[in-house]
Amino acid sequence: MNGASQLASNFYSKAGSQKLQTIMRKYLLSILSLLFFAITYSQKIIGFSEANAAKQTDWEKQFDAQLKASNQDEWMKFLTSHPHHVGSPQDKANAEYIANLFKQWGYQTEIETYYVLFPTPKTRQMELLGANPFKAKLQEPTLSADKTSGQKAEQLPTYNAYSADGDVTAELVFVNRGVPEDYEELEKMGVDVKGKIVIAKYGGSWRGIKPKVAAEHGAVGCIIYSDPADDGYGQGDDYPNGSWRPKDGAQRGSVMDLPVAPGDPLTPGTPSLKDAKRLELKDAYTLMKIPVMPISYSDALPLLQSLKGAVAPAAWRGGLPITYHVGPSTDKIHFKLAFNWDIKPLYNVIAKLPGSELPDEWVIRGNHHDGWVNGAEDPISGMVAEMDEARAIGELYKKGFRPKRTLVFCAWDGEEPALLGSTEWVEHHAEELKQKAVAYINTDGNERGFLYAGGSHTLEPFFNEITNAVKDPQTGVTVNERSYAGTLVNGDVATRKKTLDDKTFKLEPLGSGSDFTPFLQHLGIATLNIGYGGEGTGGQYHSIYDSYDYFARFGDPGLVYGVTLSQTAGRTMLRLANADVLPFDFNSFYKTINAYVTEVKTLLDNSRAETEMQNKLIKEKIYDLGNDPTKKLKTPLAKEEVPFLNFSSVENALVRLKAASDTFQKLYSGATSLSADKQKQLNTILYNAESKLVRTEGLPKRSWYKHQVYAPGYYTGYGVKTLPAIREGIEQRNWKEVQENIEIIAKTIDSYTQNINAGIAILK
Amino acid sequence: MNGASQLASNFYSKAGSQKLQTIMRKYLLSILSLLFFAITYSQKIIGFSEANAAKQTDWEKQFDAQLKASNQDEWMKFLTSHPHHVGSPQDKANAEYIANLFKQWGYQTEIETYYVLFPTPKTRQMELLGANPFKAKLQEPTLSADKTSGQKAEQLPTYNAYSADGDVTAELVFVNRGVPEDYEELEKMGVDVKGKIVIAKYGGSWRGIKPKVAAEHGAVGCIIYSDPADDGYGQGDDYPNGSWRPKDGAQRGSVMDLPVAPGDPLTPGTPSLKDAKRLELKDAYTLMKIPVMPISYSDALPLLQSLKGAVAPAAWRGGLPITYHVGPSTDKIHFKLAFNWDIKPLYNVIAKLPGSELPDEWVIRGNHHDGWVNGAEDPISGMVAEMDEARAIGELYKKGFRPKRTLVFCAWDGEEPALLGSTEWVEHHAEELKQKAVAYINTDGNERGFLYAGGSHTLEPFFNEITNAVKDPQTGVTVNERSYAGTLVNGDVATRKKTLDDKTFKLEPLGSGSDFTPFLQHLGIATLNIGYGGEGTGGQYHSIYDSYDYFARFGDPGLVYGVTLSQTAGRTMLRLANADVLPFDFNSFYKTINAYVTEVKTLLDNSRAETEMQNKLIKEKIYDLGNDPTKKLKTPLAKEEVPFLNFSSVENALVRLKAASDTFQKLYSGATSLSADKQKQLNTILYNAESKLVRTEGLPKRSWYKHQVYAPGYYTGYGVKTLPAIREGIEQRNWKEVQENIEIIAKTIDSYTQNINAGIAILK
Repeated sequence: MNGASQLASNFYSKAGSQKLQTIMRKYLLSILSLLFFAITYSQKIIGFSEANAAKQTDWEKQFDAQLKASNQDEWMKFLTSHPHHVGSPQDKANAEYIANLFKQWGYQTEIETYYVLFPTPKTRQMELLGANPFKAKLQEPTLSADKTSGQKAEQLPTYNAYSADGDVTAELVFVNRGVPEDYEELEKMGVDVKGKIVIAKYGGSWRGIKPKVAAEHGAVGCIIYSDPADDGYGQGDDYPNGSWRPKDGAQRGSVMDLPVAPGDPLTPGTPSLKDAKRLELKDAYTLMKIPVMPISYSDALPLLQSLKGAVAPAAWRGGLPITYHVGPSTDKIHFKLAFNWDIKPLYNVIAKLPGSELPDEWVIRGNHHDGWVNGAEDPISGMVAEMDEARAIGELYKKGFRPKRTLVFCAWDGEEPALLGSTEWVEHHAEELKQKAVAYINTDGNERGFLYAGGSHTLEPFFNEITNAVKDPQTGVTVNERSYAGTLVNGDVATRKKTLDDKTFKLEPLGSGSDFTPFLQHLGIATLNIGYGGEGTGGQYHSIYDSYDYFARFGDPGLVYGVTLSQTAGRTMLRLANADVLPFDFNSFYKTINAYVTEVKTLLDNSRAETEMQNKLIKEKIYDLGNDPTKKLKTPLAKEEVPFLNFSSVENALVRLKAASDTFQKLYSGATSLSADKQKQLNTILYNAESKLVRTEGLPKRSWYKHQVYAPGYYTGYGVKTLPAIREGIEQRNWKEVQENIEIIAKTIDSYTQNINAGIAILK
Repeated sequence: MNGASQLASNFYSKAGSQKLQTIMRKYLLSILSLLFFAITYSQKIIGFSEANAAKQTDWEKQFDAQLKASNQDEWMKFLTSHPHHVGSPQDKANAEYIANLFKQWGYQTEIETYYVLFPTPKTRQMELLGANPFKAKLQEPTLSADKTSGQKAEQLPTYNAYSADGDVTAELVFVNRGVPEDYEELEKMGVDVKGKIVIAKYGGSWRGIKPKVAAEHGAVGCIIYSDPADDGYGQGDDYPNGSWRPKDGAQRGSVMDLPVAPGDPLTPGTPSLKDAKRLELKDAYTLMKIPVMPISYSDALPLLQSLKGAVAPAAWRGGLPITYHVGPSTDKIHFKLAFNWDIKPLYNVIAKLPGSELPDEWVIRGNHHDGWVNGAEDPISGMVAEMDEARAIGELYKKGFRPKRTLVFCAWDGEEPALLGSTEWVEHHAEELKQKAVAYINTDGNERGFLYAGGSHTLEPFFNEITNAVKDPQTGVTVNERSYAGTLVNGDVATRKKTLDDKTFKLEPLGSGSDFTPFLQHLGIATLNIGYGGEGTGGQYHSIYDSYDYFARFGDPGLVYGVTLSQTAGRTMLRLANADVLPFDFNSFYKTINAYVTEVKTLLDNSRAETEMQNKLIKEKIYDLGNDPTKKLKTPLAKEEVPFLNFSSVENALVRLKAASDTFQKLYSGATSLSADKQKQLNTILYNAESKLVRTEGLPKRSWYKHQVYAPGYYTGYGVKTLPAIREGIEQRNWKEVQENIEIIAKTIDSYTQNINAGIAILK
């Protein structure tokens, strides 16, 4: 109504006489009423006939009215009241609590149970030997300002799940973030980690990459600490005064080899049902090979101070009041870890509302319910938003709302250790999901701030409509407009220039780090991952302080963004459930993959230019001459020249894809007039499109990951690599593999194009 | 000889029989002798006839052989044995020591004395009031590893010279580096410094800018501290374990308004002779308006911890283990300073070796001898290199060497407070210098590492020959090759790309910060400023720890780069002294100024684009929508749009300059064949060229600075601004002033071109 009132007030100010005003006011009201009706009810929604769009808009308004921050707050209080990690009493209690609520709201609900390997610590010891001995505390203290921080008996201690058992004593080396490039730097400095324990800073990669790369280089142990520059006092006041990690805070987390395969390491690719065939522990290839331990910076400080050797490169230095050296230390570190290698039950809650017209087309919504400790932000803030959506839809159902397609609401267990619950469920129901799953909508932690979303780019225009329909609670503009403004205000110059005047909400490609991975990257189901954040950020990730007390003060006070998330994800569910024709857009996919192909070609060219330059510098002895002779740095070895590769098959496939997607999208607007039968055929083609991007053989070195366009990086962990087989082949200088995968991608694109052509045949 | 021996040894290994080897050896020796002769004696030197080049090369070899690190070491020991600031007994003793040596070496030497305002502290107090009171130590402690650090009675305490007296009590605000952009950030955060005391980090601008800008914004006092991220443990181990600034180390230094005018603040523009007419203290406009005080980070820590308010922007945070807040503090700072506003004597040592043919053409060499305390690196490392050059030339003189032109070696006093000695001398002898000065060669602190040089770009090709004639002592390649390698190894990607395959040694344009300023920027005398560094860097700048002990361990162990500096600067002097035709290159000047004009045009265009974008964001309320509402940030005010300006006069002047300099440089090679009389006329034209770039009226707001191409920035202090009147006019958005100065620069260029044309007339 804001726009209309303003229009009226402008009009009044221009019209002169009282009489004219009276006449005009009379007519104006009628006109305005009509206008209002027209604006409200003629709103177009992709995939809906005009009549159905009007009905849908009305239901969505009723849906919004049902959402209640106070409900979300009440559920959050219960769900975070005790530590609720896999295998804990509260984990089971939470699953039952959620299941009971879903049942109350009218859903066909069941708890599906799996049995997974979930190690917990038996022994944790770390000490610095030598002249200045020090024993690490390895404890997060109770804070009076944080009510649940004292639940010591129930808390999982600080540890890295799936670390190896071990008892190692060795010198220490500082490896920065612990990614491959850091070891190249160390090699230049003449520092070898073979037989040593490494200490790495959190950040710069997913944590599991750090011990994996350390082990590849021969290290016998890995310590990961939270540097205060990254999420402590270097970012802001520490907890409980501010939101940042205090000196004894440490980050728990998994170090399983997630980029190779998530899920139970004893049942890769198959569901870990009670009687499943399991690998022996020694054969479980996604377990970490060396002992790994997360520590706080107060525990890290004496270890870092024990390091000798060269001063760390400028970019490696953190926020502690010391000179960072790379080591090795002369004093040794002793470090002992032993775990209970137990099988624990997982409780996935699965709640269905069957579709009235298309019950075998499933729109799936998920968030995990397990936490590392009390887990308020991660994951309960997203879980309660999902619950509120389900409840609101239950209320709508009472008023006559009937979704065409089946809605499936899931609350996953065991996400934190390795996306266990979602992966086992997807592996269990793979065949049914391949048939029925239309899309998967994921959320996880949620905070005050800006909308971010990633996912399948076929859904980008559809999701843009959602971002323009939901209002930001702090400013009253749409969440898209606020996100646009946030990027322009907070972005760097390049980002600002790119963003200015382009109000398309961009979907990020998805790597990993939450439960969308098995849906998108194992099965090829179109996926969205949604959340708000950027203004409620702090440093309690995976610590005992990610509590209700913390979240209510800093994360999302009043859970206003909890409601906004429900509006966003709920609307996404409702539209996917009720669309006459599913809102997938192939032009958007074409543009995206075309841009990725350009990127990998540029990557290859840049790699070639850099290699040429580097080799030239080596040949001309520039390193010998330019380095400080007192530092005795090693000259890097010359690398193999980068060949030119043949991209023509992909380029030709892209031409065909463009032609098909152009044609399809021109015809798409007529789809809502098709017969119900033809619509059903078309819908099947639409939601099967994403599956054309998976390949049974999977990616090189990791067959579980089957999607050819989106994958988590082999050496980034959560960070995405698009066109992973080509991109990582270039990064790893495996030219033969790159050329082979160029051909594979060309075939994949062609298979995608054939599916579009089948759609065109129906539309014509 | 290395190249030749290697060639011979390669040859032997290929020749088979003993007999052949014998024959070849016989011939080879003759060939190699001839080759050696040809390489050595046919070397061309810009400005020398072939015959004179051969003689010159021989003298340079003899010059190199005379240089002795052991001499430099002996002089350094004496000159740094006690604090030797202006007015101290050791300052006078050093001047006399240097003068006596110059006399021994055969120079006509005198000490020229001036009388300048040089305040020293009477009272220094700083304390934090309130609940957690703290009294700053303001003391650098004695270290047993540093012999002279205990000379407490003779040391100047930590202070900023030319700070105002003051006794202020006020809240504290953190202003980052204290430059104008920092205040724009504070304004967005709603923080005003009016009536407050500001605390700024050293770095990011010359120190004097910080209190100047603070006073412009209404602050009543200014504290400057050394953050450990900049020159303490964040860079490397601290002294005496390593070379970096320890926790109680502080940086003395001047805060006079140097970008307005250096020299005695009571006699601007005129020499401060004993009976000179002096301004009253209250009228001395280059004195700082508010009290200013430098402190260590251990003194700064409690003050920074007292700050409340917003967390400082990420780029503002330093290396202390705290969350940096902008303030204001609730507790107040009390801060009291009183100075002895005394007139002190300055002792400049001036030593001349009259020219045999052109005694009225002076080639001038200078380095200052005063230090803030014991001043080993700054300035004695450069001073002893200059002394060694003078001594070596004295030895050459005994063997018959007679420089054509007069050599003037200067040891300046009072550089540290405000380039006092050089400025007063230049103001005193301005008329004679305008007639006679061919060029001024400056050095200051010198360390192990890479050659850097700045100066008049007419001298760039000449100086390139020097850089290709001097060898780097650590690698044996030329200092140019080493500098090239250093840039490629240590530079960022953009710099590496720009540098690759371009082995021209680039002269940086000069701002200020050493004694070249009065020569170049007040009189328009062609200038070079030379030094080595980058591998002997530490954090003792302007502290009691810039001592012999420190320098011998970290700065330039064995003074090997002291000798290399003597080779470089000495060769520069010798070639300028003996050239048949002075080695100035107008093409090089044209290319440089043409690039600067392109830069300022781009600056204007970028400023326009940024203003448009910023105003658009403001108009569309992007700041209101994108900022975190809980932070209550202020939306910036829209700025006046940037107009298009008329650069045609400068562009046309550049066309004329290019034509003239092209013609001149084509004819230049014939100049060594001109008659002596014509050569003399041409030389006068050549060394007068730089003076065509000065304008009597000086720059806007600072008439003392007369050079139109090079100046220290009004808001950077030492940092250069090329085409300052245009560039700073754009930065300060004074469009009228910019347009006026475009016309002035056009006329300046034309006057320069006319001088070249006079040279062409002689050459034709």
